[in-house]
Amino acid sequence: MPDPRFFSVAGPFTVAELAARTGAEIAGAGERDRVITDVAPLESAGPEHITFLDNRKYLAAFRFTRAGCAIVHPDLAGDAPAGVTLLLTKTPYRGYALAAQAFYPEPAFAPGVAVSAVVDPSARLGEGCRIEHNSVIGARAELGRRCRIGANAVIGEACVLGDDVRVGANASLSHCIIGARVQLYPGVCIGQDGFGFTLDPEGYVKVPQLGRVIVGDDVEIGANSTIDRGAGPDTVIGAGSMIDNLVQIGHNVQMGRGCVLVALSGVSGSTRLGDYVMIGGQAGLAGHLAIGSGARIAAQAGVMRDVAPGEQVVGAPAVPSREFFRQVAALKRLAAKKGN
Amino acid sequence: MPDPRFFSVAGPFTVAELAARTGAEIAGAGERDRVITDVAPLESAGPEHITFLDNRKYLAAFRFTRAGCAIVHPDLAGDAPAGVTLLLTKTPYRGYALAAQAFYPEPAFAPGVAVSAVVDPSARLGEGCRIEHNSVIGARAELGRRCRIGANAVIGEACVLGDDVRVGANASLSHCIIGARVQLYPGVCIGQDGFGFTLDPEGYVKVPQLGRVIVGDDVEIGANSTIDRGAGPDTVIGAGSMIDNLVQIGHNVQMGRGCVLVALSGVSGSTRLGDYVMIGGQAGLAGHLAIGSGARIAAQAGVMRDVAPGEQVVGAPAVPSREFFRQVAALKRLAAKKGN
Amino acid sequence: MPDPRFFSVAGPFTVAELAARTGAEIAGAGERDRVITDVAPLESAGPEHITFLDNRKYLAAFRFTRAGCAIVHPDLAGDAPAGVTLLLTKTPYRGYALAAQAFYPEPAFAPGVAVSAVVDPSARLGEGCRIEHNSVIGARAELGRRCRIGANAVIGEACVLGDDVRVGANASLSHCIIGARVQLYPGVCIGQDGFGFTLDPEGYVKVPQLGRVIVGDDVEIGANSTIDRGAGPDTVIGAGSMIDNLVQIGHNVQMGRGCVLVALSGVSGSTRLGDYVMIGGQAGLAGHLAIGSGARIAAQAGVMRDVAPGEQVVGAPAVPSREFFRQVAALKRLAAKKGN
Repeated sequence: MPDPRFFSVAGPFTVAELAARTGAEIAGAGERDRVITDVAPLESAGPEHITFLDNRKYLAAFRFTRAGCAIVHPDLAGDAPAGVTLLLTKTPYRGYALAAQAFYPEPAFAPGVAVSAVVDPSARLGEGCRIEHNSVIGARAELGRRCRIGANAVIGEACVLGDDVRVGANASLSHCIIGARVQLYPGVCIGQDGFGFTLDPEGYVKVPQLGRVIVGDDVEIGANSTIDRGAGPDTVIGAGSMIDNLVQIGHNVQMGRGCVLVALSGVSGSTRLGDYVMIGGQAGLAGHLAIGSGARIAAQAGVMRDVAPGEQVVGAPAVPSREFFRQVAALKRLAAKKGN
Repeated sequence: MPDPRFFSVAGPFTVAELAARTGAEIAGAGERDRVITDVAPLESAGPEHITFLDNRKYLAAFRFTRAGCAIVHPDLAGDAPAGVTLLLTKTPYRGYALAAQAFYPEPAFAPGVAVSAVVDPSARLGEGCRIEHNSVIGARAELGRRCRIGANAVIGEACVLGDDVRVGANASLSHCIIGARVQLYPGVCIGQDGFGFTLDPEGYVKVPQLGRVIVGDDVEIGANSTIDRGAGPDTVIGAGSMIDNLVQIGHNVQMGRGCVLVALSGVSGSTRLGDYVMIGGQAGLAGHLAIGSGARIAAQAGVMRDVAPGEQVVGAPAVPSREFFRQVAALKRLAAKKGN
Repeated sequence: MPDPRFFSVAGPFTVAELAARTGAEIAGAGERDRVITDVAPLESAGPEHITFLDNRKYLAAFRFTRAGCAIVHPDLAGDAPAGVTLLLTKTPYRGYALAAQAFYPEPAFAPGVAVSAVVDPSARLGEGCRIEHNSVIGARAELGRRCRIGANAVIGEACVLGDDVRVGANASLSHCIIGARVQLYPGVCIGQDGFGFTLDPEGYVKVPQLGRVIVGDDVEIGANSTIDRGAGPDTVIGAGSMIDNLVQIGHNVQMGRGCVLVALSGVSGSTRLGDYVMIGGQAGLAGHLAIGSGARIAAQAGVMRDVAPGEQVVGAPAVPSREFFRQVAALKRLAAKKGN
């Protein structure tokens, strides 16, 4: 189903092979040997496709799917139309992800340096790198093996990239050390000066920004996001963290493993996040805070104080979510009162 | 008045010609044959200029304008100083837009491919295209007629652009089908992976993003905005939609015709907008919502539920605007009470 | 301490020299002739380093610092461990900034035009400019002396840059006049069309955007920020203003001297700011407002009315900060009431 101009499908796979790859169980008398050629959405899937149901909002579409195979939670198996072979798992979205990875593995690429790219003679490239058109690799930069540098991207002097890093088109990197398997999307800016200055009778005095950006392994950073380098300490993005588009990370921020930051959120300078902190879209965190591991910051929250590990906060200024929804309800009742 | 280094003026036009082009009516004994050479703001316009009044905030400036001709609502004609020929219309801003288009038509450009541009031999360019310096056009890309690709822009493999598309400097496109007369401003990122992954005991599992971005005719997308491609379905931007700068559109979002999204707003994955939905600056919409045609989402609103056609919502969490302002007033009174 | 791959240290300096450069006073019997080789954070500084304390949050680290010299407010001098030579000043962050500038002056650069850069023959470059790889300088552009244009940046036709301007990688400029010593970070977009159109029975009518962007001297504009050109009047950024990353400035905005805009904030079209206005992160200002000099807009505030000089506003819709915190407290009490 994916447009073959953009995506190349692997496979086909039997239902049994897909069960093995997804860790799901074939329901009842499902056809183990049925041949599946592709993934497809619920509405447009046909008998040769595998689809999935993860969100009850789409239950109606599930009931009428023409898919040959569907990944679904055991509790919803009864809603499947006849003739669909079911793969049962308690994590159907994860199951779909693994099936889709089987059909659409990361495309291979031919190594090489485009004639139009500019690679400084002192830069070192690991084997298997692909340096695309008009990109620029600065002096003393070091790239690991199999890095792919997109067209018109700029890798500044002395930057270090681990193995299997992918840098999108028009991204700009400087003053950074990037781990392995990191994916930087188009337009990302990493390593520029932090927003550091101080007032003076004669104007603002710039504070030299003397740290770096350290990005752990397996991090993704979304399109047009910006990560400033540290002012003295480094800015640190923990391994496995997922950062969406248009996110701002200020200087000296230190982030643990597996944090998730949704689009248009921002973390101010010197704030520290533990592991697996989740930050919703358009949320903002003040500077110099400590956010505990597993904390969840709701979308659009404005966080002005420390957040304990595992705490969930909402609103601006952010409060624990129970308190927030109590306030919302109280205000609603107040506004509805007669005479008000 | 516009700086001739940047803009080339056409004309001149008589008042009668401008009346015809703007659909406005010449007031009373206005000089039909007066020659107007340019547009200008109220404060700086002289006798050879045409200006306009659209916002009552600028009524004081209107009363003292030295313009030769002014486009104004009939109700405000009485505030004009003597000697100004008036063009009356109930939509003076539209009238000004048409007058300005007469004086400043879209500049023509010389077709051709810059020597420094890299166009893959398998790409197809319609006649009259202009491919500017250091831009990159990938394999199998198809451009319509008279497309203009800005310096250092990157058009990825197999992307399709309709006729008369303009792509700004340093924009990055991949996995997309773009309609006719679309304008993409500098730094735009279209078609990169959506933010799709699922938690696993061993870390996040990436969900392959297998859809495209489909952009309808006559769309504008502002500087540094980001539009992720679909995860399976496509991300769709309806014809005639106007998207401001630094806007984020998540994967699978489907948008009807003529939607307007103001700067720094964001729409989360799989949300559907009807036609002519208006979204204010910094507003955010959760995922998987249905927003009806003609709905208006206020600036900074946080929308967490479906919005009915024509409904106006404000606040975070967003509520109908009447309810919002009632809450604001109730809270203000509460805070002002003695003993509080 | 800064990574020598990215930063080159000057010096060393004696304590007495650093006192002179920072305007601080050597406390008591401090060792005037002690040799300091570098700056360092409180925790990692050694006897050869200078550090500073500016935020009481880091007082614990100060008490145990091993630094040879520390810049500190006189009130906190008593908290210093024995053996640290203190430089006393009421503005220790400013003192640190000046010390860091001594050790890390702006790096010199070799002038020249990269072979891969494209400079239009009609462009004029002042002496000492450095034009980096794959950048593009358009027709009739005028650059002052010692400008540094980053890799893959695009300077549009007829743009004017003052002396000592630095333009980051992948930045896109058009229709603008830039003052001296301005620093534009990577990915910045300046001078594109404002968001100007008007509704018509047959769709939106584009309003030609005929102004420019005028940027005063000593301005900084952060990564991926966007500044639209004026619609007729110019968009004006006052001298000495500091703009963070991912900030949006709409058409016709006029900003005084020394304004500070934190990341992800946005100013809508035609709003005017006085001098030294401070706008917090993710704050948004509606269009056509007047914001007085010295006003402070809190993070995430939504400003829908004029703000008086010196006024501090918070919340959405923004109100004076005293009123805001009274409302927050009143709502908290209301939600805590029994029966609620």
